[in-house]
Amino acid sequence: MTSIQIQPLDVKAAEAAAKYIDTLTKPQGSLGRLEELAINLAGITQEIFPTVTPPGVLVFAADHGVVEEGVSAFPKSVTAQMALNFLEGGAAINVFSKQIGAQFQLVDIGIATTVQHSELSCRKVRMGTRNFCNEHAMTRNEVEQAIEIGINEATSLINKGIKCLIVGEMGIGNTTSSTALLAALTNHKVEELVGSGTGITSQQLKHKIERIEQALADRQYDVKDPIDILSAFGGLEIAGMVGAMLAAASYRIPIIVDGFICTTAAVFAVQMNELASDYMFASHQSVEPGHRFALSILKKEPLLNLQMRLGEGSGAAIAFPLLHSASLMIKEMATFADAGVANKE
Amino acid sequence: MTSIQIQPLDVKAAEAAAKYIDTLTKPQGSLGRLEELAINLAGITQEIFPTVTPPGVLVFAADHGVVEEGVSAFPKSVTAQMALNFLEGGAAINVFSKQIGAQFQLVDIGIATTVQHSELSCRKVRMGTRNFCNEHAMTRNEVEQAIEIGINEATSLINKGIKCLIVGEMGIGNTTSSTALLAALTNHKVEELVGSGTGITSQQLKHKIERIEQALADRQYDVKDPIDILSAFGGLEIAGMVGAMLAAASYRIPIIVDGFICTTAAVFAVQMNELASDYMFASHQSVEPGHRFALSILKKEPLLNLQMRLGEGSGAAIAFPLLHSASLMIKEMATFADAGVANKE
Repeated sequence: MTSIQIQPLDVKAAEAAAKYIDTLTKPQGSLGRLEELAINLAGITQEIFPTVTPPGVLVFAADHGVVEEGVSAFPKSVTAQMALNFLEGGAAINVFSKQIGAQFQLVDIGIATTVQHSELSCRKVRMGTRNFCNEHAMTRNEVEQAIEIGINEATSLINKGIKCLIVGEMGIGNTTSSTALLAALTNHKVEELVGSGTGITSQQLKHKIERIEQALADRQYDVKDPIDILSAFGGLEIAGMVGAMLAAASYRIPIIVDGFICTTAAVFAVQMNELASDYMFASHQSVEPGHRFALSILKKEPLLNLQMRLGEGSGAAIAFPLLHSASLMIKEMATFADAGVANKE
Repeated sequence: MTSIQIQPLDVKAAEAAAKYIDTLTKPQGSLGRLEELAINLAGITQEIFPTVTPPGVLVFAADHGVVEEGVSAFPKSVTAQMALNFLEGGAAINVFSKQIGAQFQLVDIGIATTVQHSELSCRKVRMGTRNFCNEHAMTRNEVEQAIEIGINEATSLINKGIKCLIVGEMGIGNTTSSTALLAALTNHKVEELVGSGTGITSQQLKHKIERIEQALADRQYDVKDPIDILSAFGGLEIAGMVGAMLAAASYRIPIIVDGFICTTAAVFAVQMNELASDYMFASHQSVEPGHRFALSILKKEPLLNLQMRLGEGSGAAIAFPLLHSASLMIKEMATFADAGVANKE
């Protein structure tokens, strides 16, 4: 697997940005978190006047063997159907990508059926993961392949000129996989992490908890080894997102993290290289209970709380304009001196 | 004063939008508040596929006689200086207006000095309000003139084609005026409403509370008459915003309400016509303590909470992309039937 080098934030650029922001025509600190965002962007990009446009939206789609346990409200076939919807521009993430002027790329990293489309990056590692209630979801080699694909896809978008990476996913069953991954990594109670995903009943929820708890007891994995945990519980799209985030951090590209599944991938990326965390922004607080827990591991405060639970990168895309505002603020606002405005008495 | 007629929301359009949203390719309800926004926009505009672009940003600037009491961190001259900064495009609201493709208009409704600029709408009612610690800030006739100017300026932007109104203000001393207005209207404790505005010390804060409390005791006003309260405590820009919001509601144009001062104006607009509230969206939760109270009167939940306290319409402008996302979602997403995606099992 490609070795990823991530550098620390550029503290000098961040400090210079903070100092400059205090000369802009507004009371000090009055733009609140927008000022923090601009300072963080400066530390990430090593530029006092950071650029975040154009953004790139990279969505990984894959299937989950565990769906055969009846843990999802939607049938497995929806992953492939929604992938085609993404490719035709009809999904929420397409609408929001277009709104923010993003380059959009869908990657088939393991859909269980064949999907063909000129816009699709076809990088199937396998036709969906195995059912983790019976066996490991992936081999170690498959996890590493998926991470490598994520690295390559993100690198390709970065080479095309994107200045901010939004990561998303599609995969029926992937809240189940994410819950198992977080519970395995942290030993946190499954019932406190699990949610209704795309909309299961309370009885199905109970069943979902039982299947995850049983699998956690049955599978063998090394809690110190994030690749081993990913191998046990999947999914291919989650491993792809891990790779994409590591690559973006290595190129000093800011990353906007989406909801529960994406944030779980972010947690695993940070397990593999803790410096990756400095390059991540939490976009929104999802309705999924495990999301708040995942954010707390990352020590990130989300920018939005709009009771969303869609995934696809949709929350990250709608948070992007706030990063853009922060970047424009520092680039375009006048200083007190330039504008001839008197500062505080 | 022009009589303003406001119609109730179109419940049928809202219901049709809600029904249609449930056919879009996503789990029902999974876009959370974006779905609510789209439904409200349909009720406001009477269109199932509502349009919010281009937005208009209308900023009213005026001075406050009460500044001579030493209640502000910045000198009074900053109102005129910042007005020129707005006209030259250097303020935060200019940057965010440009980002969202808004038509921008600054109105001098009562700056205490002469400001000349080709882009300025010069509608001075008087050279700043009187000091409300000594006498009424405005005559009743001045309040009505200011409201009328607000109506005319908003109507003018609406006639130019704006589909969403963002209202902002500039006026050194206007958190003091807003606090007095809300306390007079509701009899709420001043110390629970007052904040540090543009950044005063705790000693200055104590002084600010004392001056407001004394003025509330000294001035005579009818608590049932919003124009009488506005006349007692000002300000001209607040009355202008009241008029602008009433006009937008009468034309079924959605209004994005900004921070503390703008929300105070919204409260007074709703006092004058309670139907106006249905046309308003609360953009953000400001750091000013009185803002949460003003939002609670309106029964509005803000979209953002980014610890901002700048005013100018800046919070409303950065919230605009969320309304835009909601409008694009309903307009552009594919339905399950169109995309050939299986719905929930």
